[in-house]
Amino acid sequence: MNYVKHARCTLCNTTLPVTKGITTCPTCQDKGILEIEYDYERMKEEVTLDYFKNQHDPTMWRYKPMMSIDSDHYLKTLPIGGTPLIHAQRLANDLGLKQLHIKDEGMNPTGSLKDRASAVAVVKACEENHRTVACSSTGNAASSLAGNAAKLGLKAMIFVPERAPLGKLRQLSIYGANVFKVRGDYKATFTLSKEAIDTYHWYNRNAAINPHLVEGKKTVAYEIAEHFGFKVPDWVVVSVGDGCTIAGVYKGFYDLLQLELIDRLPRLLGVQSLGCAPFVKAFETKQSLIETDENTLADSIAVGIPRNPVKALRAVNHTGGSFIAVSDEKILASMKHLGALEGIFAEPASAAGLAGLVEALNQKRIKHDESIVLIHTGNGLKDPATAERVISPPYDIEGTIEALKNTINLEEEK
Amino acid sequence: MNYVKHARCTLCNTTLPVTKGITTCPTCQDKGILEIEYDYERMKEEVTLDYFKNQHDPTMWRYKPMMSIDSDHYLKTLPIGGTPLIHAQRLANDLGLKQLHIKDEGMNPTGSLKDRASAVAVVKACEENHRTVACSSTGNAASSLAGNAAKLGLKAMIFVPERAPLGKLRQLSIYGANVFKVRGDYKATFTLSKEAIDTYHWYNRNAAINPHLVEGKKTVAYEIAEHFGFKVPDWVVVSVGDGCTIAGVYKGFYDLLQLELIDRLPRLLGVQSLGCAPFVKAFETKQSLIETDENTLADSIAVGIPRNPVKALRAVNHTGGSFIAVSDEKILASMKHLGALEGIFAEPASAAGLAGLVEALNQKRIKHDESIVLIHTGNGLKDPATAERVISPPYDIEGTIEALKNTINLEEEK
Repeated sequence: MNYVKHARCTLCNTTLPVTKGITTCPTCQDKGILEIEYDYERMKEEVTLDYFKNQHDPTMWRYKPMMSIDSDHYLKTLPIGGTPLIHAQRLANDLGLKQLHIKDEGMNPTGSLKDRASAVAVVKACEENHRTVACSSTGNAASSLAGNAAKLGLKAMIFVPERAPLGKLRQLSIYGANVFKVRGDYKATFTLSKEAIDTYHWYNRNAAINPHLVEGKKTVAYEIAEHFGFKVPDWVVVSVGDGCTIAGVYKGFYDLLQLELIDRLPRLLGVQSLGCAPFVKAFETKQSLIETDENTLADSIAVGIPRNPVKALRAVNHTGGSFIAVSDEKILASMKHLGALEGIFAEPASAAGLAGLVEALNQKRIKHDESIVLIHTGNGLKDPATAERVISPPYDIEGTIEALKNTINLEEEK
Repeated sequence: MNYVKHARCTLCNTTLPVTKGITTCPTCQDKGILEIEYDYERMKEEVTLDYFKNQHDPTMWRYKPMMSIDSDHYLKTLPIGGTPLIHAQRLANDLGLKQLHIKDEGMNPTGSLKDRASAVAVVKACEENHRTVACSSTGNAASSLAGNAAKLGLKAMIFVPERAPLGKLRQLSIYGANVFKVRGDYKATFTLSKEAIDTYHWYNRNAAINPHLVEGKKTVAYEIAEHFGFKVPDWVVVSVGDGCTIAGVYKGFYDLLQLELIDRLPRLLGVQSLGCAPFVKAFETKQSLIETDENTLADSIAVGIPRNPVKALRAVNHTGGSFIAVSDEKILASMKHLGALEGIFAEPASAAGLAGLVEALNQKRIKHDESIVLIHTGNGLKDPATAERVISPPYDIEGTIEALKNTINLEEEK
């Protein structure tokens, strides 16, 4: 029993029932990304402030009545969500900010925010009697799908392009996923995964295509709002690749507004890399999204053809937010900054959020006295090779106290 | 204000006051590891079942009145503890067990149980007005110290032997730690770190030497007991290196028994690698611990000269527990097992725990109908190179559905 009313196409606005195997709009095809809509009037009767006082589940499933879940399979998932919202006092001081919090999504079981979407995917797959789930990805979506599938005893089929670095595949392989390295580029990989999903009737966990995934991601916004007693911050900052995450953040706050649990939406700052910034361009020119190159080390947001343009642009426009682009150098600097000041090891795409915040402050798009939540989307342990580029090498010394003293003295003189 | 009574030497049994900078017994020197003892009668008045009902801090600091902390610096640490205790139903079914839970310490902020000790170290360092903390380690102790020091604005000085793989140093370097690679072996490194700590008056986070560290680690036992409503499981399984972690687990349950919150101690199974099993040998021969080689890929438990022999042996003997050794092959198999059945990516030392449990079941030291908690001590993302040894390579295929079908058919025929 849930409060789902129907799905609506983000292109043609048609509504259709949320049935098994729902993907995109039958009329608009692949680009007709669907949005699940709820009966908020009925939901309101269950989801009140008292509901939260009496809800003791610390995971994302504390919000189950606000989601499109129909079964109890969620009880068997990995412990996802309930991540810490860290008071980032040292970083705030350094940036001259009044109030800065970091939502640490790197502390999810497989190390990224994508766990929230993958958890919904495996639960829906079980509901719909699938034994196999599939996606095409080399990154966090794939590893989180693999981990979540393992926990529920589902088979995971992951399609990766041939250029995928082997290192990135370790985590998903340890979860026992079947990995298919497809000769060709990402487009060839995606096409084959789609054909395979149709042929074998596997459950589809491809970004945007499956409308339930955003319904998992939105729980991160619920947690932020609930942490502050349903007072929202002025800004929420998050990096943007295909647009599904920022769409999820928006949807979460939107739901809470409809339920009258919050009284306004926070402004959303979407951050991209200068080397791959289709959203920034579309936002600034007010034109449609144009395919771009993928020239950035922040692989998790290197998406030249984002699959969720409508939802992501709406998220920023409806909240009076902004899109901003930052250089790879600033992303690397932000990795060091987060590590040294807050003890947080972020992957490059995640550090991009901080770089974007700094840039937005410089450009006065965000004011220093506004309250800000930065979403740290993925654990840096997933991409140690990039970390190598920003760290200082160790001091190489003889095992004597004199050698140590000399080293320390030399450093202090620098 | 806390309930600390005094420290007691685990060798000569003398008590001494817990003062600033306390390390080991002045009489017994380095081997005179100290144990902090509490006034349980007074503690009992505060720490009751009602105390826990009204305590809303989800981190390890919910147990602050049961620790040796004197200040409020703990309020600024990383969000440590409160890790999930996962119902491992699929693994239990596979092993024919009635009840198996996994305490997921890999979900701590820097990815290991060591965070609990490092958090205490940085808090005590602040209490004692130190600005610099130091340790000699290449592994989880070092990275957790570096992360926790960053969060509190302390300088971290880490001493590593020259053979330390650079990859292992990435995480601590990203946190801004100063890393000294000392020409020579681990002993030379430890000796220099000790001299440096004495010379510069840095705060000492070396295992066993600092008696407050076990007081951090013991909170993992509190969380296990509280999760079950203060009914303890029959067995708690954990891998053992220098002996501090199993000593901490014991201390936690011991405290709860003194407070009459639990009515018995769980039996502890300490797991070592066959290539480095000094505790297993000492336990089986009932002789003193003898220095051994360090021939195992499970680097976090590759400790040939454990620094905490008395506490670790007592932990097992007092609970009617056992020590067991497993081969590196079984450790690797357990990594796959945990990943594929529970969606948990464990580092080798952590997977050793599961290998030990399986061996103990085979040897009938643990019965299949006993309730078991396995402590997963560290995240596998920290050691991806070892994971490489157990995973299956991806299927390399052409981007056509026929190629995929052929691959899948071939696999199914195998």
